[in-house]
Amino acid sequence: MGKELTSRSEDYSQWYNELVKKADLAEHSEVRGCMVIKPYGYSIWEKMQQTLDKMFKDTGHVNAYFPLFIPKSYLAKEASHVEGFAKECAIVTHYRLKNSEDGKGVVVDPEAKLEEELIVRPTSETVIWNSYKKWIQSYRDLPILINQWANVVRWEMRTRLFLRTAEFLWQEGHTAHSTADEAVKETLQMLDVYADFAERHMALPVVKGKKSEGEKFPGAIDTYCIEGLMQDGKALQAGTSHFLGQNFAKAFDVQFAGKDGKLDYVWGTSWGVSTRLMGALIMAHSDDDGLVLPPKLAPIHVVIVPIFKTDEEFEKISAKVNEISAELRKHNITVKFDNRDTHKPGFKFAEWELKGVPVRLAIGPRDLENGTVEVARRDTKEKKVMNMETVAVDVLVLLDEIQKNIHQKALKLREEMTTRVDNFDDFKKVMEEKGGFVLAHWDGTKETEAAIKEATKATIRCIPLDAPDETGTCVYSGKPSSKRVLFAQAY
Amino acid sequence: MGKELTSRSEDYSQWYNELVKKADLAEHSEVRGCMVIKPYGYSIWEKMQQTLDKMFKDTGHVNAYFPLFIPKSYLAKEASHVEGFAKECAIVTHYRLKNSEDGKGVVVDPEAKLEEELIVRPTSETVIWNSYKKWIQSYRDLPILINQWANVVRWEMRTRLFLRTAEFLWQEGHTAHSTADEAVKETLQMLDVYADFAERHMALPVVKGKKSEGEKFPGAIDTYCIEGLMQDGKALQAGTSHFLGQNFAKAFDVQFAGKDGKLDYVWGTSWGVSTRLMGALIMAHSDDDGLVLPPKLAPIHVVIVPIFKTDEEFEKISAKVNEISAELRKHNITVKFDNRDTHKPGFKFAEWELKGVPVRLAIGPRDLENGTVEVARRDTKEKKVMNMETVAVDVLVLLDEIQKNIHQKALKLREEMTTRVDNFDDFKKVMEEKGGFVLAHWDGTKETEAAIKEATKATIRCIPLDAPDETGTCVYSGKPSSKRVLFAQAY
Repeated sequence: MGKELTSRSEDYSQWYNELVKKADLAEHSEVRGCMVIKPYGYSIWEKMQQTLDKMFKDTGHVNAYFPLFIPKSYLAKEASHVEGFAKECAIVTHYRLKNSEDGKGVVVDPEAKLEEELIVRPTSETVIWNSYKKWIQSYRDLPILINQWANVVRWEMRTRLFLRTAEFLWQEGHTAHSTADEAVKETLQMLDVYADFAERHMALPVVKGKKSEGEKFPGAIDTYCIEGLMQDGKALQAGTSHFLGQNFAKAFDVQFAGKDGKLDYVWGTSWGVSTRLMGALIMAHSDDDGLVLPPKLAPIHVVIVPIFKTDEEFEKISAKVNEISAELRKHNITVKFDNRDTHKPGFKFAEWELKGVPVRLAIGPRDLENGTVEVARRDTKEKKVMNMETVAVDVLVLLDEIQKNIHQKALKLREEMTTRVDNFDDFKKVMEEKGGFVLAHWDGTKETEAAIKEATKATIRCIPLDAPDETGTCVYSGKPSSKRVLFAQAY
Repeated sequence: MGKELTSRSEDYSQWYNELVKKADLAEHSEVRGCMVIKPYGYSIWEKMQQTLDKMFKDTGHVNAYFPLFIPKSYLAKEASHVEGFAKECAIVTHYRLKNSEDGKGVVVDPEAKLEEELIVRPTSETVIWNSYKKWIQSYRDLPILINQWANVVRWEMRTRLFLRTAEFLWQEGHTAHSTADEAVKETLQMLDVYADFAERHMALPVVKGKKSEGEKFPGAIDTYCIEGLMQDGKALQAGTSHFLGQNFAKAFDVQFAGKDGKLDYVWGTSWGVSTRLMGALIMAHSDDDGLVLPPKLAPIHVVIVPIFKTDEEFEKISAKVNEISAELRKHNITVKFDNRDTHKPGFKFAEWELKGVPVRLAIGPRDLENGTVEVARRDTKEKKVMNMETVAVDVLVLLDEIQKNIHQKALKLREEMTTRVDNFDDFKKVMEEKGGFVLAHWDGTKETEAAIKEATKATIRCIPLDAPDETGTCVYSGKPSSKRVLFAQAY
């Protein structure tokens, strides 16, 4: 099966599309721009959700649920927000269908027109701050630390599975604070949570940084992000955390009485990651044989394939597999015994490689005699023989090693694909020939940002938080600059 | 705080509305028909979700995600389905807003009209069977056992928090099978899962039964349900499981090749429970002082209230509370230490009673001296003194006892409120004066069902699965009947 996959070097984009479909992760639905997340893909998303949800709760957040629909007038309350989101969206205008006069099917009932159109939420700041207005009177009502798991809709014209779809799943945190300082701390805390999740669970190295004015969230004062690098040298924004200042509080008139009794507008943040993370996970690690999943997010850690000719052999192997599986499960390792008699081992090997299962065990009659198991790891394709007695603990260690190795490999790629450039010819050359991240000086103007994008398709991914102060001149305009920013072509 | 609640006897409906709001479970949003589920309410829903999700997985199901939008033509493919669902729904007709000509706000861009309108899913049979058509070719592709956690929209005109809202959260299982027998077994298995969840976790006794033709799901061959009885004597349908026959397979042309190579239509089921369960949970057990939560679904099992006058007392009590809390947490008991110095103990007692926390511990200076704790249970309001040393284990036992007691109490109420009647005068009298479930003979016709509803507002909740065969005559028409069915006025 793996052989059928287009290779990355041949056509990276095609490789991705095929992989998502062949590994049974997702597919396009016939509903414009919407995807179907298939059970195997969804089980990875569930692992992401569970991990993130725990991280949110550990940092004091609670979940809640707000309406899917946003009255049109809400969107219009925050000027830059409506510019950013009201344009391409799904609009509910009617609430009833009726039988068509020709008797064939149903038509929209013109009498059931809504007085005010409803927008299917592209993000929930407006509807949530409208609630916060009712919930917040005094400093004692603050902070509010709420997260929501939900679906959102943005009417994208060109869609790609997980990366850009009209409907997608995400979480959106919306917090309210009595001071700017506390809100900024929250914004940065959640950026750290996202970075931690990306690095430790997705095995994805990310650069933490701040967006330029041109790239920030419509309605935010500052947008922070984590940026990962995919194997084709393009960047992918994996999560954003916004310091909203008092913008939404002012738009929705949310004021609180401080300890001194004085009224002030509430400070806000919002932050989100989405099913886009699935795209990042796939593109960062997978190879020409299929998915490579970091063990911490793999729905199946270990697949066991029996090698047998006779029923008797199969029975004996199965009995041993049951023992081994029980032992593995004791260590919280998820095991799948592929006992199908309709497929040969080679076919099964390829299928589980395609699906990215981190560890494969193969057990044949000779292994039974010798008390051994053949252990193959997905990331490096290396095989070794392990002792049956100790295989559970050895696999546990191996899973940890795989998690680290996948991260190291991605880190190495990023290092190789990050170039410091000091003039625009080099900038263009790198973008054309090598791709990846480029660290270059920028004069801080929108005009330069736009001109560079026009010339190279590269955008400022972020101003890295750890960028050292360094005197230099803008790679494009030659004007002075105090630090390098991160450029790349991006998804 | 509890005192502010309208009593059940005074106005049950008002009591419910106030309770939902005062206990911080949910509130109406300004978006027509949509509710905001507040953090405390959502945390109960999360517990329901986690428990049900595990039960679904333990019975072999996997989660997936299908589009929010359903093309209008899909709904029209199954004749009775469109009758049931296409009428009151949210219809997306446009995909873009633009600045209005007067410069004030945004308006729908008439040029961005969809070729085919999209319906916000009221339920997902159509969009899912449209996918199944692509997924199913042979018997080897079956069964498909998929569940989805999602939001759905049905345009309700009169809404009540949790019980009937335009948007609500639910899960919908959609399974596909190669034989009718297997699909029926699945339908009944999921009914059992729901009943088991209601009885063991919600502490809600339910009657399992089959819906009459008039009450079944549009598109189903048979609809099974669980029916609970609320304290005001009205029934609440808490979950449904549908045997769809080949109806949706035929509507979407989903055929499979059997082992013999012959083509046949696939057999289907669907089953769901929703945030309506929250309404059932609240109405079944709560009292005039507020919520009564069964421990298995309580977000907080134990609240600890310190009784102190001086800072020194507070410090000493806090130290002991930390010890006790650690001990309780070891037993997987969720603990909240209410250490606010802004409220008096009496206020705190009332607040946690309103929120339904099953067990309250109060610790004062004398308790420290004596090594005791005052333990109050929410369900019976009984208090007793426990030994600090053994309080964790004693509370664990108590929580179990509370879970059982709440169930027993609801069961007793249902027994008292279930009446067998044999003539229509008695039927009307019971419905007028007593309410509750009525077990009566019915001739099996739609006409009688409608006439009884017209006269008494009572509907056939179900034909109980355990109804014994019994020769009788219809309570309304006098025609012969072979078993009693369950009538009630219902939510």
